Parts: sequence; C-alpha cells; structure tokens
Amino acid sequence: MKIVQLEDTREFSSGIMKRFFLVENSPHFKIINFNLDAGVTFPVHSHDLDGELSIQVLEGEGYFLGEANGEIAAKAGDILISQIREPHGVRATTQMRLLVTIAPPI
Amino acid sequence: MKIVQLEDTREFSSGIMKRFFLVENSPHFKIINFNLDAGVTFPVHSHDLDGELSIQVLEGEGYFLGEANGEIAAKAGDILISQIREPHGVRATTQMRLLVTIAPPI
Repeated sequence: MKIVQLEDTREFSSGIMKRFFLVENSPHFKIINFNLDAGVTFPVHSHDLDGELSIQVLEGEGYFLGEANGEIAAKAGDILISQIREPHGVRATTQMRLLVTIAPPI
Repeated sequence: MKIVQLEDTREFSSGIMKRFFLVENSPHFKIINFNLDAGVTFPVHSHDLDGELSIQVLEGEGYFLGEANGEIAAKAGDILISQIREPHGVRATTQMRLLVTIAPPI
C-alpha cells in the first residue's frame, strides 16, 4: 500500500513532455503521469499486445488522437479508454497533465 | 476506443455513496467512479485474489482507511495504490469523488 500525490509531479518543461512513473514494478498495471507543454504532441502509437489503457486528462486541453488522423477534443475530466493495439496519442493545446493506466503493464 | 467524461457522473445523494461503472466489461481492468456524500464511509474490505487497485481522489477530502483502524489523510490529487488482498477503504469528510481502477477486474 502506498500513496502517490499528483502535486509532487506537477512539472512542465518548455516544448517537451515530462514523464513520471507512479507505479512502475507491479505485475498488474503501470501508472504514469505525463505533463505536456502547450503545443506538444504525444505521437500516435500502438503495440501488438493484449491489454487496455486509460488516458485521463487531469488539467488542460487538447485532443485525443487516433488512427487516420482522427482527433477528439479532450479537457480535464475526460478519459480515453483504448486497447493497447489501437492507435492512440494526445496533442496538447495548453499545458496538459495526463494520468495513464496500462493493464497489464507493458 | 471510447471516451468517458467524469462530469457526466458528478451526482451525489444525501447520506450515501453512488457508484458509476465507467469500464465494466473489460478483461483487463474495471474503472469505477464513486461519489460519497460528506460523512459517508466506504467500509474497509479486501478480497483473497491476486490483483491491484488505485483509488484516486478527484474532489473533496477525507481519509484512506487500512487495517487496524489506520487512517491517512486524503485530498484531491492523492492516489492510494493497494493490493486487492490488503484491507482498504475511504471515509469522506466533505463530498468526495473517487476514481477506482482494479486490475485485473473483480
């Protein structure tokens, strides 16, 4: 049992995406906080593995990205649920914090 | 791929805990939004199963509960990571929203 505080990893850097592993060595899931500076894209990607992930917007605004250049507006409180096999990504229009949970972890 | 919006399930009822399944039928994880009215306790419980869960406080304040009457202050942005086998619960002092992810789902 452990407690993680999201305020501890609220760090942005100019023009890039910062990544903080909140749960890294569990066999059950991986939990990661990504902080994207305004204008940064987390490129669309996928993995040929069984599993699912959630991408929760903690702060800020942007777009969830999918296959075929698909974009869906994303704001704080929105959660994308996706198979790991499905193409997924995020584009930040403001500074944007994401909480990503991947099960099982990859 | 689907989008869930946490604002859609922001409902409280006097003196009780409301539960909304955001991801219910995945083989990989279950994601649930619990909304506790002020003063409500989500009782300490555990299951004799392999797996892990996260309890993220979305709004409000209270305490994470553990074994032996243990209490740890909990506020928005705090996340409890626990084995499913470990006793865990929550006590709300204000209206409190929780996002719970259980992997694998039980």
